[in-house]
Amino acid sequence: MQVKVLIDCNDEKGLVYKISRLFYEHGLNIEKNSEFVDGEYKKFFMRSVISGEIEIQVLQEELYSLLPEGANVRIIPPRRKKIVIMATKESHCLGDILIRYADGELDADIEAVVANHDDLRGLTEKFDIPFHHISAKGLDRDEHEKRVIATLDRYEFDHIVLAKYMRILNPEFVKHYEEKIINIHHSFLPAFIGANPYKQAYNRGVKIIGATAHFVNNMLDEGPIIYQDVIRIDHSYSWQDMQQAGRDVEKIVLAKALKYALEDRIFVYANKTVIF
Amino acid sequence: MQVKVLIDCNDEKGLVYKISRLFYEHGLNIEKNSEFVDGEYKKFFMRSVISGEIEIQVLQEELYSLLPEGANVRIIPPRRKKIVIMATKESHCLGDILIRYADGELDADIEAVVANHDDLRGLTEKFDIPFHHISAKGLDRDEHEKRVIATLDRYEFDHIVLAKYMRILNPEFVKHYEEKIINIHHSFLPAFIGANPYKQAYNRGVKIIGATAHFVNNMLDEGPIIYQDVIRIDHSYSWQDMQQAGRDVEKIVLAKALKYALEDRIFVYANKTVIF
Amino acid sequence: MQVKVLIDCNDEKGLVYKISRLFYEHGLNIEKNSEFVDGEYKKFFMRSVISGEIEIQVLQEELYSLLPEGANVRIIPPRRKKIVIMATKESHCLGDILIRYADGELDADIEAVVANHDDLRGLTEKFDIPFHHISAKGLDRDEHEKRVIATLDRYEFDHIVLAKYMRILNPEFVKHYEEKIINIHHSFLPAFIGANPYKQAYNRGVKIIGATAHFVNNMLDEGPIIYQDVIRIDHSYSWQDMQQAGRDVEKIVLAKALKYALEDRIFVYANKTVIF
Amino acid sequence: MQVKVLIDCNDEKGLVYKISRLFYEHGLNIEKNSEFVDGEYKKFFMRSVISGEIEIQVLQEELYSLLPEGANVRIIPPRRKKIVIMATKESHCLGDILIRYADGELDADIEAVVANHDDLRGLTEKFDIPFHHISAKGLDRDEHEKRVIATLDRYEFDHIVLAKYMRILNPEFVKHYEEKIINIHHSFLPAFIGANPYKQAYNRGVKIIGATAHFVNNMLDEGPIIYQDVIRIDHSYSWQDMQQAGRDVEKIVLAKALKYALEDRIFVYANKTVIF
Repeated sequence: MQVKVLIDCNDEKGLVYKISRLFYEHGLNIEKNSEFVDGEYKKFFMRSVISGEIEIQVLQEELYSLLPEGANVRIIPPRRKKIVIMATKESHCLGDILIRYADGELDADIEAVVANHDDLRGLTEKFDIPFHHISAKGLDRDEHEKRVIATLDRYEFDHIVLAKYMRILNPEFVKHYEEKIINIHHSFLPAFIGANPYKQAYNRGVKIIGATAHFVNNMLDEGPIIYQDVIRIDHSYSWQDMQQAGRDVEKIVLAKALKYALEDRIFVYANKTVIF
Repeated sequence: MQVKVLIDCNDEKGLVYKISRLFYEHGLNIEKNSEFVDGEYKKFFMRSVISGEIEIQVLQEELYSLLPEGANVRIIPPRRKKIVIMATKESHCLGDILIRYADGELDADIEAVVANHDDLRGLTEKFDIPFHHISAKGLDRDEHEKRVIATLDRYEFDHIVLAKYMRILNPEFVKHYEEKIINIHHSFLPAFIGANPYKQAYNRGVKIIGATAHFVNNMLDEGPIIYQDVIRIDHSYSWQDMQQAGRDVEKIVLAKALKYALEDRIFVYANKTVIF
Repeated sequence: MQVKVLIDCNDEKGLVYKISRLFYEHGLNIEKNSEFVDGEYKKFFMRSVISGEIEIQVLQEELYSLLPEGANVRIIPPRRKKIVIMATKESHCLGDILIRYADGELDADIEAVVANHDDLRGLTEKFDIPFHHISAKGLDRDEHEKRVIATLDRYEFDHIVLAKYMRILNPEFVKHYEEKIINIHHSFLPAFIGANPYKQAYNRGVKIIGATAHFVNNMLDEGPIIYQDVIRIDHSYSWQDMQQAGRDVEKIVLAKALKYALEDRIFVYANKTVIF
Repeated sequence: MQVKVLIDCNDEKGLVYKISRLFYEHGLNIEKNSEFVDGEYKKFFMRSVISGEIEIQVLQEELYSLLPEGANVRIIPPRRKKIVIMATKESHCLGDILIRYADGELDADIEAVVANHDDLRGLTEKFDIPFHHISAKGLDRDEHEKRVIATLDRYEFDHIVLAKYMRILNPEFVKHYEEKIINIHHSFLPAFIGANPYKQAYNRGVKIIGATAHFVNNMLDEGPIIYQDVIRIDHSYSWQDMQQAGRDVEKIVLAKALKYALEDRIFVYANKTVIF
């Protein structure tokens, strides 16, 4: 069996030694290993891919017993993950994930797509994935989100992917799915927080635009950043041209962030990410 | 009516004046204008988007009469273009074009997909596009291409898009569709011409890989380059990792080149492109 | 003689024709030509490089007479430009300009370097350029700037280059040298306005950092952007690492913006730039 | 004391454990740690920054005794390195290194500059660095290189930096300074090997150009690549424009590769590099 072991804890001397000794004593092989010590926070991060005869429960207990107090240990056996996608009207991010899903590149099952408009039903159902249209018309945010949660909770999943879901989420919603929600924001954050970032970018006259994938927390557009990328533009771009050109960056950035999450390569701390 | 006027000819004094005078005398408005003079070849290139009451035949004749001998004038009225796609087994480029088509981003109709394997039938037919599997098994290249041509020629189209079509084309095939074929090559040409560029890149130990979209001419991988892009890699990438990471570059580069072609922004000369 | 002609005015039909006719009637040759119409502001921009027997005064008057009211016409004969540089302690931007100057790449003379610290005297004087140390110690901003202006005004110059000049400038100073001051800001504006952008970037956990060259106006870090570039970073970068890595981006971005200015390729309007 | 430990050897189970145990038993602290296993070559690479009371000789012997046969162990105490630079006429790469040297950014002393032309004497001597002009006029390659070697061998140094040294080196020269020579090639290798890569790039009509820093081995332009970067160009670039634009990439790429070398972050194997 091959498992991923993700450890984060306060830094102290000998951590690599103690952890690798434990693996060695269990006869386990380290296939891949990454460590990082954050000098400012005195935090130790380690991600190992190990193989051999592993009793996860036992390994986990022994790791906790040798690590400093407050440590987090995640031991992740091979398991196909599940995601749900939330969207609105734009199809480029959703479509990109669907194509990756269809050809086996996406290492996860898509359980459902939930949207506040019905536009993306046709595209979604082409790929035999349940589509739920939950209109927000006439509902306040609370009421709408209750319905979304009621639908989502019929499924099991590891991540919610906001594939251009164009509504702000209540703190209650975010809390309900803590650290599970990945969003794509259509700007190079922290520039152009909020609505219409391409218009903001156009008005500011920037020469480069970008996109940012991040975990969602209570502060709009302020969650831990997972991945960003940019493209060069010039004065000849209207904001609509920027929006059009930005679609390709958005979908690639979101796909890459999702890949990191599905491969268990992300640690979150201090509103930042460590990615191995 | 709004039309695009593309002119290329030997350079001489007064070309901008003479052409813009003609537009002015016809009461036409120049919406966009780009010019370029290649100093080495003494060649003049101009692309204008003009609007007004236009008799294309008349305008074309008058342009030819005022331009130097050997000039090329293309006047292109608004018209939805048509493409066919050739593919093999990999779906990322085809899928990307299909999604753009489905959401209206692609400014063309896809008439058909022709493939030498049957793997992509399901994906293609989801989007209600005819799929033709023309196996090359047991056929020599000539015979196979005859069958492909027989199928393609049942359709009208402006461009053939080779979306990871993994077979070399005979000069006869290329000649039959001169300047119509756009290919995506999975390397940063002219590095790694030929088969398995990712393996070649891995063996060479490069730190950046790329993709190249180009028109196809008789020399394999040596046609006029339309667009290129790259991504950074490091020693931890196997050639399969490169191939995987390269998929995103390939599809975006091909889509961008196709967009340039569909928008009539490309001039080809001296085995190079001028793109406005 | 070869001159550059830069025109911006309200857009109307026939501008390209009228301008190119004037050039043609004067027997002038258009070597290079770029136009752009801003659809939102209905503004026309044109930059031509023309050659022939030119009486600048006459040409200018005739251009004004055929252009809409409020037009700006700049006719720029070949002339070596002059710059002054303001700096503080960091040498990478100043040094980069000095090297370009020494090998003839910089198409301008450096008249003087003015700094609020004395650290860069040695480097500057190696290149036989006058260095003025004007300490701000014990002076309020007004008084300090008066002394800087008194020194600067002993020179003639086309541009002031703020090569990591780490003091905020009063509106009076900026007004005194309107549209002449080019600054390098060590972030990808508008992200991280103000002090310590690398610390801000570190705290926000961004995955890409950048630099921005812009004209200086009264609003700190909000002037028209000329050029930007970025580099990818990851969690292993301390803010000092970012600062270190950012130096290369800063100097290249500043050099490129200065090059655009020296080549008269920039139009400023609506707090943005058009760059041909 | 803080030292860097670089280990490469055949991969086997328990290496991380055994090495980290040794560090632990010596009471040493691991400040930074990077490992990589090349799956194809079954090679293990590890770079640790460790601190504590270290007897290098002892540590080295103990490491060798626990590692598989054929292992390489480098233990590098804090030591200011020395470099020599070889150049020809172009100053941008040399100048860039000199500026980094002058402001303390370069973590090495420049012992001398050796050039086959005298053009760069003035620039070099501004920074109080010995400049040796060794003309190749009237000499065959062997004879010229003998003189260069005679001059170089008067200095002690860790690296020879070819900062646009425009002559091919004999295998004897390369062998004499094995794995010490870092070159900057003005193309995105392996594209455009040999002379005039910008002309080659112009003729091929590429849309991106680049630069490559690599160790020099006997095969021209085929040594292990350390770092590469690229910039986007378009049809409006003459090959001279490319050359001009390429200068900035060349100098940054060379500086970055040199930094990796000075920080002992590079392993060379199979004509490739692992860089931590």
